Amino acid sequence: MKTNKILVLVHDLAEDLELWYPVYRIREEGYLVHMASEKRGMLFKGKYGVPYTSDVSWDDIHAADYDGLLIPGGWAPDKMRRFERVKELVRDFDAQGKPIGQICHGASVTISAGIMNGVKVTSTPGIMDDLKNAGAVWINEPVVVDDNIVSSRKPEDLTQYMVAFINLLEQGR
Amino acid sequence: MKTNKILVLVHDLAEDLELWYPVYRIREEGYLVHMASEKRGMLFKGKYGVPYTSDVSWDDIHAADYDGLLIPGGWAPDKMRRFERVKELVRDFDAQGKPIGQICHGASVTISAGIMNGVKVTSTPGIMDDLKNAGAVWINEPVVVDDNIVSSRKPEDLTQYMVAFINLLEQGR
Repeated sequence: MKTNKILVLVHDLAEDLELWYPVYRIREEGYLVHMASEKRGMLFKGKYGVPYTSDVSWDDIHAADYDGLLIPGGWAPDKMRRFERVKELVRDFDAQGKPIGQICHGASVTISAGIMNGVKVTSTPGIMDDLKNAGAVWINEPVVVDDNIVSSRKPEDLTQYMVAFINLLEQGR
Repeated sequence: MKTNKILVLVHDLAEDLELWYPVYRIREEGYLVHMASEKRGMLFKGKYGVPYTSDVSWDDIHAADYDGLLIPGGWAPDKMRRFERVKELVRDFDAQGKPIGQICHGASVTISAGIMNGVKVTSTPGIMDDLKNAGAVWINEPVVVDDNIVSSRKPEDLTQYMVAFINLLEQGR
């Protein structure tokens, strides 16, 4: 049932390196990466200005067609968490036990999807209280893995974040 | 004689992903990365605006203290190639047979260092003619390895670029 595809949720002002390092790193492992947003072909800019374009609309895709989900940080999660379809999609990935990677503010999206209760996670300190209020167990480590949820704090954690996420994906191969 | 350190030449307006993807990827392999510029502690911004700070001055370091050299693309190479010390340092890495990675416009620096004659390389098409005039054999491939020189064309080639560069580093371990 391996699809060799990874979905990345995007919107305006994602943290540039938290978006792009995982995208290239996962491509190195042979995965096709789709960036999903409201519509296909939307042009966005990262927090610092690196541009990116959505490959698919999240209305047109299904969790079953991907091996895992990545949620970048920056200000994009604040936008993405407002969409019912995003929350539904995140719950689908979770229900199917597929790896979900979230870095920095990315956890805002899984909070809104309602899947953080009882989960051990890390994030930017900026949303630590929100994660606790959502029932998560917040830990100050570069990367935390709890079942299918891989979380990280900030760009400096990117290498450990990706090693953990790829390990989890490999277990599903 | 392994140092487990990699030097990256930096100046203003490096291509953001061509600078940062290699930096994080090489850190994942356990290398310490030093960004070198005119002075230590200089703050720069990439072409799109991702910030970075030089860790060392290229006046204070030696090729012998590093396992390899990386030269990002963007507009930074146009600045860096003007410095005698940069050209000297590049020649030192080359004379010691250490891996030199250059992507996109990064090859401008090795042209000025005078080490491209007879070397098989690729680059952005923007400097293809300069490489040919410097005596290089220009090839339109995502990554070209000739002895200790690893070259690549553009951000989309980053994964193949890093796999080749890391392979070469591993041979020296």
